[in-house]
Amino acid sequence: MKVSRRDLLAGAAGVVALGKTAAMQPQEAPADPSKVRGRPSRALGQRAPAEKPQRQPRGVASSGTPHQDLYGTITPADLHFERHHGGVPEIDPRNYSLLIHGMVERPMVFTLADLKRFPSVSRVHFLECSGNFGGRGTATEITPQQLAGLTSTSEWTGVALATVFREVGVRPQATWFLAEGQDAALLTRSIPVSKAFDDALIAYGQNGEAIRPEQGYPARLFLPGWEGNSNVKWLRRIELSDRPFMTREETSKYTDPMADGTARIFSFLMDPRSLITYPAYPVAVNRGWVEINGIAWSGSGKIQRVDVSTDGGATWTAARLQEPVLSKAHTRFRHLWNWTGGEATIMSRAIDEKGNAQPTKTELMAARGVSSVGYHLNPITGWLVRPDGTVVYRAEPWA
Amino acid sequence: MKVSRRDLLAGAAGVVALGKTAAMQPQEAPADPSKVRGRPSRALGQRAPAEKPQRQPRGVASSGTPHQDLYGTITPADLHFERHHGGVPEIDPRNYSLLIHGMVERPMVFTLADLKRFPSVSRVHFLECSGNFGGRGTATEITPQQLAGLTSTSEWTGVALATVFREVGVRPQATWFLAEGQDAALLTRSIPVSKAFDDALIAYGQNGEAIRPEQGYPARLFLPGWEGNSNVKWLRRIELSDRPFMTREETSKYTDPMADGTARIFSFLMDPRSLITYPAYPVAVNRGWVEINGIAWSGSGKIQRVDVSTDGGATWTAARLQEPVLSKAHTRFRHLWNWTGGEATIMSRAIDEKGNAQPTKTELMAARGVSSVGYHLNPITGWLVRPDGTVVYRAEPWA
Repeated sequence: MKVSRRDLLAGAAGVVALGKTAAMQPQEAPADPSKVRGRPSRALGQRAPAEKPQRQPRGVASSGTPHQDLYGTITPADLHFERHHGGVPEIDPRNYSLLIHGMVERPMVFTLADLKRFPSVSRVHFLECSGNFGGRGTATEITPQQLAGLTSTSEWTGVALATVFREVGVRPQATWFLAEGQDAALLTRSIPVSKAFDDALIAYGQNGEAIRPEQGYPARLFLPGWEGNSNVKWLRRIELSDRPFMTREETSKYTDPMADGTARIFSFLMDPRSLITYPAYPVAVNRGWVEINGIAWSGSGKIQRVDVSTDGGATWTAARLQEPVLSKAHTRFRHLWNWTGGEATIMSRAIDEKGNAQPTKTELMAARGVSSVGYHLNPITGWLVRPDGTVVYRAEPWA
Repeated sequence: MKVSRRDLLAGAAGVVALGKTAAMQPQEAPADPSKVRGRPSRALGQRAPAEKPQRQPRGVASSGTPHQDLYGTITPADLHFERHHGGVPEIDPRNYSLLIHGMVERPMVFTLADLKRFPSVSRVHFLECSGNFGGRGTATEITPQQLAGLTSTSEWTGVALATVFREVGVRPQATWFLAEGQDAALLTRSIPVSKAFDDALIAYGQNGEAIRPEQGYPARLFLPGWEGNSNVKWLRRIELSDRPFMTREETSKYTDPMADGTARIFSFLMDPRSLITYPAYPVAVNRGWVEINGIAWSGSGKIQRVDVSTDGGATWTAARLQEPVLSKAHTRFRHLWNWTGGEATIMSRAIDEKGNAQPTKTELMAARGVSSVGYHLNPITGWLVRPDGTVVYRAEPWA
């Protein structure tokens, strides 16, 4: 079948539907944008009026990334999740300073300009709250944002903490350091010095620009692959010591109950996890080819494989991974699925380069020996595609 | 020297300056942000009040990226350069359609939903106007943004053009296609079909979200490594043919004058280039270690090496490249330089994986046999660091 350009551009597009008609909607007669001079250049771009991705505040202290609206791996800075314990402070960068003291040869105060004068590095990494995937109960009409909005990925820029530690002369007996924020919560965490000499940063850049206020402006600690709250924001003080400091945020909170009644503390590492972001509530799909896609990530390194199941976990197929796969970063996975119209449960599971695999919730609970945990949840999650094409969250058990 | 936390946090930071005193400024007594509850979470983040990166409109038809304000490789979407010939059209995505016709088996119209239903890909690539680096004359007080603001890098998401071309059944004799935009300029370009089967996309995503209006919302052609205007925005029509269409934007404009009086046309490929973004006008540097850094990119593939000179081109040293180096994408380079205070001209030159090297302007002109060219300029550029630390642009000759 052949049509001329004139037929198509002059007529209503719905009338001359060719191929893929199922996806075409009746449309109002469009105003022709090519007949109107467009707006001039401007200093800052804005989103198209029809595009309204937003974070979803959960109370005053957090908001989640709208994964269902996003593509690829980078989270736009204004959609990066936030989590704070005393609100987002306003800090004049001219007044910013970072004190490093304790078990060091040369206690020092660094201005922001001092930090920026050091050799810099930029790396793409995820950041995730250890409470992500928690507290969803038995709801089914929840979006990827509501299920797991507390993870985001950015290109972070800063100075290697190792560089700064060499400048102040960290003493050999120092094995832990305290990181303290300048927010109203004065959030403090104890961090092993070994992480500083591995891959930690003091970050002042995010996705090409200055770090945003709710991500720690003007400078934050960044610990690739470690739970969000240990990446202390609005960093004003680092104290070196030969033992952990046992602060509020690592004793009364952010600990994991264990079978013997004790609590596991200093569980920094984020295990491998994955999340299907399409199709997911509230979209509906049509029969035929559906590209299942989502994100997978691990605090231990690169994602090695993501398996997708479209039959509730009975069979699994390796998905395509977006290249390059980066260490400790969201990795987009994609899997083509021919949906023939029946009820189906779709799921994903991530395996990282260390061989760690994302467990079911049953396996996760069994491994910890407890019936519920508040933090460090990385269960396989599923979505139920109903015969009418609507999609809802489906918690375990799936069968 | 040892100080207590109390001394430092209670006192004025300037008084207890330890180490790196040169970079520390006298400061007003800071209000302590930790004594004030911060603002609650919100749906969209905003920049810190002190951070005001902006594009710089040049007339109504373009604006440049503020490279001097940026880190790493990703350009924030609202700072991506813009260039248009009839303004930025407003397009209702529900009314969007793309016609593909001409030498194809099955002419088709695709809605935006149709395009999104195909298998998707995401890749990080630069996009650059072929007029970048042009028209600066002999000015010295110009920023990296003014010198070369018409290049930016994003993570682009879309459908491979090859996938769509297979769907419509492009005929074997079709060697060129016309891409037509839906803007008031009805911008059209002729593109070899071979590019479609190489790495071209129809892109609808940019840095994780929907493409921005001035970058072609809701969908554009994306030709990695090829001059900006051939990446037709607001794409509404593709026509396959066995010859180029000889449109206005490839005959009266965007051609390169040659020595014999003819003009080179269809010079799509962007040659390797680099730009030092720090230090550059208008910053001033202090004596001691200065991290020279900037971006390098090539339309032919990956950057293999960036050489930096701090003596006007007499000697060159290979800079550190930010990993991973991606094909046809801005690559951040960094080079530590101990500035002892004399006048110095700093320069960078890029070499890509195909062995193409960035030339001097003299070499560039000699190769083309002409005294000036309007497009496809990729000369080595330099910055003059004056004894007082101020930095200005320095055009050839440098010696």
